[in-house]
Amino acid sequence: MYAVNVRDHFMIAHSFRGAVFGPAQRLHGATYVVDLELRREALDADGIVVDIGLATQVLREELAALNFRNLDEQPEFAGRNTTTEFLARVIFDRIAARVAAGALGPHALPGAQGNGLTQMRVTLNESHVAWASYEGRLPMQPGG
Amino acid sequence: MYAVNVRDHFMIAHSFRGAVFGPAQRLHGATYVVDLELRREALDADGIVVDIGLATQVLREELAALNFRNLDEQPEFAGRNTTTEFLARVIFDRIAARVAAGALGPHALPGAQGNGLTQMRVTLNESHVAWASYEGRLPMQPGG
Amino acid sequence: MYAVNVRDHFMIAHSFRGAVFGPAQRLHGATYVVDLELRREALDADGIVVDIGLATQVLREELAALNFRNLDEQPEFAGRNTTTEFLARVIFDRIAARVAAGALGPHALPGAQGNGLTQMRVTLNESHVAWASYEGRLPMQPGG
Amino acid sequence: MYAVNVRDHFMIAHSFRGAVFGPAQRLHGATYVVDLELRREALDADGIVVDIGLATQVLREELAALNFRNLDEQPEFAGRNTTTEFLARVIFDRIAARVAAGALGPHALPGAQGNGLTQMRVTLNESHVAWASYEGRLPMQPGG
Amino acid sequence: MYAVNVRDHFMIAHSFRGAVFGPAQRLHGATYVVDLELRREALDADGIVVDIGLATQVLREELAALNFRNLDEQPEFAGRNTTTEFLARVIFDRIAARVAAGALGPHALPGAQGNGLTQMRVTLNESHVAWASYEGRLPMQPGG
Amino acid sequence: MYAVNVRDHFMIAHSFRGAVFGPAQRLHGATYVVDLELRREALDADGIVVDIGLATQVLREELAALNFRNLDEQPEFAGRNTTTEFLARVIFDRIAARVAAGALGPHALPGAQGNGLTQMRVTLNESHVAWASYEGRLPMQPGG
Repeated sequence: MYAVNVRDHFMIAHSFRGAVFGPAQRLHGATYVVDLELRREALDADGIVVDIGLATQVLREELAALNFRNLDEQPEFAGRNTTTEFLARVIFDRIAARVAAGALGPHALPGAQGNGLTQMRVTLNESHVAWASYEGRLPMQPGG
Repeated sequence: MYAVNVRDHFMIAHSFRGAVFGPAQRLHGATYVVDLELRREALDADGIVVDIGLATQVLREELAALNFRNLDEQPEFAGRNTTTEFLARVIFDRIAARVAAGALGPHALPGAQGNGLTQMRVTLNESHVAWASYEGRLPMQPGG
Repeated sequence: MYAVNVRDHFMIAHSFRGAVFGPAQRLHGATYVVDLELRREALDADGIVVDIGLATQVLREELAALNFRNLDEQPEFAGRNTTTEFLARVIFDRIAARVAAGALGPHALPGAQGNGLTQMRVTLNESHVAWASYEGRLPMQPGG
Repeated sequence: MYAVNVRDHFMIAHSFRGAVFGPAQRLHGATYVVDLELRREALDADGIVVDIGLATQVLREELAALNFRNLDEQPEFAGRNTTTEFLARVIFDRIAARVAAGALGPHALPGAQGNGLTQMRVTLNESHVAWASYEGRLPMQPGG
Repeated sequence: MYAVNVRDHFMIAHSFRGAVFGPAQRLHGATYVVDLELRREALDADGIVVDIGLATQVLREELAALNFRNLDEQPEFAGRNTTTEFLARVIFDRIAARVAAGALGPHALPGAQGNGLTQMRVTLNESHVAWASYEGRLPMQPGG
Repeated sequence: MYAVNVRDHFMIAHSFRGAVFGPAQRLHGATYVVDLELRREALDADGIVVDIGLATQVLREELAALNFRNLDEQPEFAGRNTTTEFLARVIFDRIAARVAAGALGPHALPGAQGNGLTQMRVTLNESHVAWASYEGRLPMQPGG
C-alpha cells in the first residue's frame, strides 16, 4: 500500500455543550494542523499516488471554508459539538466528495490506472500533546 | 475509524541482558515520550472518541507508576529486558485493564454508544531517531 | 549563559481590528504552544538554572488564566489586538512579576547564588509555520 | 502487533517527466528523512522486535547507495519518475531482500521465535508539509 | 525584543567543490525548510511586529526564485559553493533588500512606529539533524 | 553572524541530591537529544562555517564517552548533580577544548580565514516539554 500526505492548517473559535468538556464549554478556539493522507495499491502511469499539487489545493480550499470562523455560528454545525474528531470526519467527507467529483483528477477515481485511491485519513493536530483523526475507504460507502 | 491521541512522558533507568544489546547492557536510562491512541468506529452522544481529560489522567497515572525509577529493581520486571517495545506492551496492558474497569467512563466500554473503544496503540518515542509501539484490540483477548 | 525551557499550551478565541488582519478580523481562535526559557550566568548550589517543577507550575497557572477564554471579552485586553506577539509580552510580564515576587524561589532572584535569573524569553507557537516571542532582561526595567 | 522504527536521511538530485509535475520537471533535489518501521506479532527471546543496531546499519547502507547522487543518471531508474512514493517502494524492496537474506539476523526471518517480522513500512519525509510511504507484508510476495 | 517567525520550503540540486565536501562533491540536492524571523523593539499601532501575510508572501516569492532549480547553473552563484549557510545569507540579503524597498509595509522601515524592524534571522533546516542560519541587523550595513 | 547546527543523542542513568529534585532523587535516566550550534562572523574560503563532517564526528565522540552510562558512578561527576544544564556545560567545555586542539580543522581556530568560530551553544532536549542549554564564546575564557 502506498500513501502520500500533505499538511496545512486552520484556526477557529467554538464552544462545547456537555459536562464532560469542563472549561471547554466556554467560547475558546484552536489551531488545527491538518494531515491529509491518501492511499492506493499501485502507482499510476506517472509514478504517483496523486497529483500532490491538486491534493494541496483541495485541502487548502476545504480548510479555507472553515478558517477564521466561529463554528458555533455555522448553520451546518447547529446542535453539534465540533470536537477535533468530529471535524476530522467533516473534512474527510468533504474531501471524499471532492475526490469522487474528480477534483484530484481521473487517476484518483475507482477503476483508474492502479485502481485509484482506496483509503484516506484526515488528522487534526490540536497541540503538541493531542490529535484526532478519521480514516475510511474511498469511495465512501452509503452511511459512512 | 476515529482516533484520539494524548501524549505524556516518563524517565527511567535500566540495563539489558544479551549480547545483542552491546553497550546497552550497562546501566543507562531513557526518556520515553508516550503517545496513547484510542480508536472507535462511531462517536458517542457528546461527539467524542473518549473523555480526553480522563484519558490524559489515566496515562499520567500509569506513567507515574514507572517514572523516576530503576526498572532493574522493579519486581514485576524481574528476569525481563525492559526494552522499548516491551514497555509499550506493559503500558498497553495496564491501560487496557483500566479501560475495562471503567476508568475512561461507561462510553468507552464495549456495547456502549458507538460501541465503545475497539483498538488502542501505545507508542514510546525514545529519541529523535527511534520509537516502538504496541497496538491491539479492546477489550483485550485472553492471551493477548 | 545557561538556559532552561519548559513547554505548555492554551487555547483561546479572539478577533482583530484593522485591515491588515484580513479574514482574521472575524472571531476565530488559536492553540498556542508556549515555550518559557529562563537564563542565568551561573548555576545555583543545586546545579540548576531554576526549580523546573516551580517553573512548570507557574507557567501552567499563568496559562490557565487565559485558557478556554474569548480574549475579546477580557477587560484587561479592551481596545487591544491580542496578537501572538502581544500575548507573548503579556505572559512575559506576568511571569516576570511572579519571579520578582519569589514564585520561582529565592535562587531565581537578583543577587542570589549565581546571581539569579537575568533573561527570559516567551515564545508562542501558533501553527507548524508561525510563531512569535518576546524576550527581555530580569528583573524587568521600568517601561519595559 | 509490535513495531520498531529507526530514522536516517539521504539527499539526491532528480527531475520528473510529465505535465503533472509542473516546475518539478526541472532538475532539482530533495532531502528525504526516512522512517523504517518493522512489525511482528510477538517479541523474540531477547524481548525485541529486531536488533535495532542491525536495522540502523541496514537502513544506512541502503540509503548510502542513493545518497549524494543524481537519480536521473542511475541506470536502475532509467525511464522512471523517482517520485517520493516510488523511492519509498524501492527502499522497501531493497530492505525486504536484505531481511530475507538474513541481514537483520535469524530472529527476523519467518518461522523464527515469535514468527519473525511480518510487516514493514518505509516513509520518506520530504518537507515539513509532505511525506510518502510504502508498506507491505514480509516476506514479500511474488509480484509485490 | 519581539520576534515573529514564518516558515516555507524549497527544493534544489547542486554540487560542491573542495575535498572537505567528500561525496557531496557529486551532484545531489536538498529540501530546505526555511524560517524567517523578524525582530523589533516595540510593536506598531496594530499590535504587530510585521504584517504576517506580507512576510509570508515575500518569503514565498524569494524561495520561488530558487525552487526546483539546479543552483550549479544559476549565473549569480557561479564559482561559489551554495552551502546551506551561504544560501541562508543569500536569502537574508534578498529579503533585507525587499524590506528596505517597503515590501513589508511602511511600519517595517527604520524610524517607523516602534522604530521598525531591527534584526532578522534566516534559518535553513536541511534534515532532522542539521540546519544553518544567518542573522544580522536591519537595515543592512554596507559590507554586511 | 552565521551558525551551523548538528544533532545527535545519548542515554544515561543518574540521580540527584537535594529536596528540590523530588522523585528525581531516585535513580532514573534520560535520553538527551543534543544540538551543537557553531557560529562565526564570516564564512571560510570553502563557503562554510565548519566542516560538518568533522563537527558531527566530534559531537558523536564526546557523546559516546557519556552514552549508556550511570553518571552517578563516573568519577569526574563525583559530588555533582548531573542536571541537564550542568551536562550542557560539560559537553560545551569538552567540545571547546577539542576545537582549540584543532579537531574541527584549522579554519575553526581564532585568526583563521573569516576569523574562525567565535560562539558555541550546546542544547540538551530531554523531553517534548523541556530542554536546557549552555552557550559561550570561543575560545573559552579562563574561568568560563
